[in-house]
Amino acid sequence: MPGKLYGVSVGPGDPELITIKARKRIEASNTIAYPVRAPGEESTALNIVKGAVDLSGKRIEEIQFEMNPDPLVRESNYQDAIKKIARLLDEGDVSMINLGDATVFSTYMHISLDISKLGYETETIPGVTSFCSGAAEAGIPLVIDDEGLVIVPYAKESNQLFKALRDFDNIVVMKAFNSMKSLEFMMNEFNISKDKAVVLSNIGMADQYVGDFDTEKKYGYFTTVIIKKKGKGK
Amino acid sequence: MPGKLYGVSVGPGDPELITIKARKRIEASNTIAYPVRAPGEESTALNIVKGAVDLSGKRIEEIQFEMNPDPLVRESNYQDAIKKIARLLDEGDVSMINLGDATVFSTYMHISLDISKLGYETETIPGVTSFCSGAAEAGIPLVIDDEGLVIVPYAKESNQLFKALRDFDNIVVMKAFNSMKSLEFMMNEFNISKDKAVVLSNIGMADQYVGDFDTEKKYGYFTTVIIKKKGKGK
Repeated sequence: MPGKLYGVSVGPGDPELITIKARKRIEASNTIAYPVRAPGEESTALNIVKGAVDLSGKRIEEIQFEMNPDPLVRESNYQDAIKKIARLLDEGDVSMINLGDATVFSTYMHISLDISKLGYETETIPGVTSFCSGAAEAGIPLVIDDEGLVIVPYAKESNQLFKALRDFDNIVVMKAFNSMKSLEFMMNEFNISKDKAVVLSNIGMADQYVGDFDTEKKYGYFTTVIIKKKGKGK
Repeated sequence: MPGKLYGVSVGPGDPELITIKARKRIEASNTIAYPVRAPGEESTALNIVKGAVDLSGKRIEEIQFEMNPDPLVRESNYQDAIKKIARLLDEGDVSMINLGDATVFSTYMHISLDISKLGYETETIPGVTSFCSGAAEAGIPLVIDDEGLVIVPYAKESNQLFKALRDFDNIVVMKAFNSMKSLEFMMNEFNISKDKAVVLSNIGMADQYVGDFDTEKKYGYFTTVIIKKKGKGK
């Protein structure tokens, strides 16, 4: 009988923000898989797991999802990754670990769908998102009462961020690390001052930053901005 | 020295979806406080904690936040609640437990702010939200690639839901339990068919429902609808 694929969310960075369920699942799996964009790349998700679970004796498998600009090459790489996961499943259960929560901006949900089309069982274990953890670190609510909350990635070609800033009280802008000046410009268009924003960078990691919106500062790859039009409540 | 107030998120329902950090914090606290709307009300958050932590010997304190229609009465009740928490803190650390994540639609963030104004230290421990857990249960992504995600409570007087359905690919409608027909009507306005929606009701509880959007069915109090305009990907 083939194994089952578990998409295990490991939270935003602090190993103690792994759930009891996720830890048990990883402990019970012989094979731990983790996604990378390039061979040998360091995995934040794997580092988090190492802080919470003894992985000695387990098979640790890197699964490559190359961000090739050619969609045909990308698709072919993706199919290779799916085949590799299927081969691992033929030998038993696999825990595929995911930073944050697996249902929020992760490749895992694509994988889960394609793996279940091949006839394997899958299960997703939810986790703490970086924006919930960041808001908790900053001591601010993400959303209260009858307000709305929008979560958008910073994307040049999209007008979603524009609509979010125009129409909603609370906006979480993900993948903002090299777009802070453009974001500031858009906020100005809507008269949203910088003191309405909190920057969360590399939450739960050694170089974590939770603080003011400063466009002069250099931020890490995992940078999220929380914008609260009605103020941060402090 | 007075104690510290911990806002401990306990996740959506399954006691195993409590984080390691939250469990340790509750274990280390002599006093566990939980919010109720009426005296003696059963607490879902407390039931979750009982499934993960042995509470024997701990002081368990109900904190009442009455939803009185009169804002003056409501404010006076709220101030009484703050005073009660302050008195508990004068005797040591308090873990105030919260369903889901404390930064998402919870009274706790108001409390945390007012308690810190009184000079007490506070810390928020994040948790798994009901919508992440529900999407995982349904085996669907909340948001992928460059899409956006809006989280809004169903509120009659608000046009946020309208804007969310008009402008965004993924919409989570919370507190939808007695508004399913109105929601269906709004979805129809935007040509969003019912098969684009998943209903999540009382996630992690004994009467959990994860399934089709059926306006004839009766749903529990904790009912959330996930709408994915591009389809559920199955």
